[in-house]
Amino acid sequence: MFEFDSLLSAVASGEAKPFSGYPPYHFVGGNIDEPTVPSEALADAVGDVIRNQGPAMGKYGMNSGPQGYLPLREFLSDCLKRRAGMSVTPGEVLVTTGSLQAMDLVNKALLNKGDVVLVEAANYAGTLTKLDALGVDYVGIELDKKGMRMDALERALSDLAARGRKPKYIFTIPTIQNPTGTVMPIERRRKMLALAKQYDVPIFEDDCYADLVFSGKRPPAIHALDDDRRVIYCGTFSKTIAPALRVGYLVAPWPLMGHILPLKTDAGSGALEQMVLAEFLPGHFDNHVSGLLPMLQEKADILCTSLDEHFGASVEYEKPVGGIYLWVTLPKTIDTDRLFQVALEQGVEINPGSQWTVDGAGNKHRMRICFGHPPIGNIREGIAKLAQICFEEFGLPIRSGNVERL
Amino acid sequence: MFEFDSLLSAVASGEAKPFSGYPPYHFVGGNIDEPTVPSEALADAVGDVIRNQGPAMGKYGMNSGPQGYLPLREFLSDCLKRRAGMSVTPGEVLVTTGSLQAMDLVNKALLNKGDVVLVEAANYAGTLTKLDALGVDYVGIELDKKGMRMDALERALSDLAARGRKPKYIFTIPTIQNPTGTVMPIERRRKMLALAKQYDVPIFEDDCYADLVFSGKRPPAIHALDDDRRVIYCGTFSKTIAPALRVGYLVAPWPLMGHILPLKTDAGSGALEQMVLAEFLPGHFDNHVSGLLPMLQEKADILCTSLDEHFGASVEYEKPVGGIYLWVTLPKTIDTDRLFQVALEQGVEINPGSQWTVDGAGNKHRMRICFGHPPIGNIREGIAKLAQICFEEFGLPIRSGNVERL
Repeated sequence: MFEFDSLLSAVASGEAKPFSGYPPYHFVGGNIDEPTVPSEALADAVGDVIRNQGPAMGKYGMNSGPQGYLPLREFLSDCLKRRAGMSVTPGEVLVTTGSLQAMDLVNKALLNKGDVVLVEAANYAGTLTKLDALGVDYVGIELDKKGMRMDALERALSDLAARGRKPKYIFTIPTIQNPTGTVMPIERRRKMLALAKQYDVPIFEDDCYADLVFSGKRPPAIHALDDDRRVIYCGTFSKTIAPALRVGYLVAPWPLMGHILPLKTDAGSGALEQMVLAEFLPGHFDNHVSGLLPMLQEKADILCTSLDEHFGASVEYEKPVGGIYLWVTLPKTIDTDRLFQVALEQGVEINPGSQWTVDGAGNKHRMRICFGHPPIGNIREGIAKLAQICFEEFGLPIRSGNVERL
Repeated sequence: MFEFDSLLSAVASGEAKPFSGYPPYHFVGGNIDEPTVPSEALADAVGDVIRNQGPAMGKYGMNSGPQGYLPLREFLSDCLKRRAGMSVTPGEVLVTTGSLQAMDLVNKALLNKGDVVLVEAANYAGTLTKLDALGVDYVGIELDKKGMRMDALERALSDLAARGRKPKYIFTIPTIQNPTGTVMPIERRRKMLALAKQYDVPIFEDDCYADLVFSGKRPPAIHALDDDRRVIYCGTFSKTIAPALRVGYLVAPWPLMGHILPLKTDAGSGALEQMVLAEFLPGHFDNHVSGLLPMLQEKADILCTSLDEHFGASVEYEKPVGGIYLWVTLPKTIDTDRLFQVALEQGVEINPGSQWTVDGAGNKHRMRICFGHPPIGNIREGIAKLAQICFEEFGLPIRSGNVERL
């Protein structure tokens, strides 16, 4: 049998196993609550749209060209204005295969090996793995309860400048920061823009979770507060409609957009999802999202009470104000890389903090727990089980509810 | 306004303009005949499948994992057996955003800058631009009426071996070769496998147009004749169903598949298209494709007669036996790069031969004309117009029909 291993490129050393399903307690991944996928409405919308638009699918890009289905981009222009305060034309929007592709495209357009970027010190794991794969350095900027600290940002910019360096961009997830769940207030957003201007760097704003603020109120996007067109922005419908649709969007000014387009070498993202969303979302999106929030709030509450009940004084966390994940701090004697392994063997999957932070070694006592997808009973059971597994491995937590563990 | 130009990466120098629609005579792109998109059938299929499967879209990868919707992969396993003689399990199939993504993934997995590959001397333009972008060398192997010549392939392999080099793969489009339209007979396919074995190299087979052989009969895929699992294979539904759906597929053996999966960093291709096709294709695909062939044959005939009528003795071509494009040779005094420019200004778009050949400079008198998409009357008018434009620029062709040009 022919052996490919010796032919693999420098970037192909990763190794996936065949898919074998999900563990019973699946507290990872940005998956969402399955009953909330608006299947009926999408089904109704899609039949009509295919009958009307179907023939145009005979062309790459249909009648809209490489930036994606124009009615969807028109919806986004309107929606981003209404929900995030942004002024964006459809020509400044590129529909992508999820926000993951948007990130890949921005990185491909701007980053060379050896460049440096600034990122929040706790981050979406994919951000860090993408930068690692590209050989790009990153500096983690300290976070607090209001998100990225601007004194820390200023210090990092100044330190780099003193060494003759400039970051290619400041990457931020300011609204429901992943994984810490914070929301950056407007004053800090303005300060970030001021620092970006002072040091002449762009900002890359990831707003993927921003629709999921439980109160329904969010600060304007940094993009909305920017006068200089220095903010590149991405978002997605993965967390509000369904991740499997793979519909995200990149917002970039021209001429940068003109440099990004040739890098999207797949001749377009899938047409059906774009057409279906363009049909369904106008007039329905805001209500649909509002309908998700109480359920997510309830799941967040139940996750927190379950943690309180089963981990007691052994956990610290900030109650989520939105989103689908919780960032948990455990006593320093607990190694969450090890906890991840033993828990997975027993059917419980969590995200170990070392993969969700720039200083992985210093965060081995933290973990991210996703609550968007598991049903409520499953959250309760899963956390109870996790506590038991943790006790068996590390001797903590000792108490569960009123019962001392044996 | 913030200026991004000085921040662009090494690969971001390309520059697209905003989309401004298509020229009236659009003889480029792998677009297909719009009325043949099976809109009604797709619309019927899709409503049910979304209602039934919709909630599972709440998970990345639904219940199928990262290789794509399992029922679609099961269909492909069956279809590739029936139509191409291939023995492939669903686990060896990866659904991609078009075959373009399949090519990108294979290249990412196997190619480092400075590697060399072997390709047919006339090729899909995207093959060459992708390799150029990666800094990968390629040697063009001579073609004749039966496709890649095996004596030329042997010579190239031997020459490289004498210099201590081995190509990372032999890339071939053996069934309706793009752009020459040839079909490689089975004996040459076996010979290619024998040479690949002798020189210990893999083959990357692109079968994107293979369903469009007008006779309905095609040789077995090279993959089907391979005993060593040295063939990587890609195909697509872009040319048979609709390109805007962006559904292609990569067939690769494990463990290579395990190395490719982590490089598909978009967490999956769009779910709706996969579900719709899995619903519609079984029991319908063969009939649907059979229904396309007479129309494509007719368009090919009309293109040829139009060329005969308007270009007369000034063109040479092989009548297509399938597919959606024609490779045309003109007198050497005609520069098709220049013809492309002046024709586009006047609303006629063709592919200049220099972009569709390894030896671009030696092929400036050739062009590719796509006939899948334009309606029949448009083909006739467009070719008449092209001949007139060509005459005005180059003084050829002199005669059109019975009328001498002035």
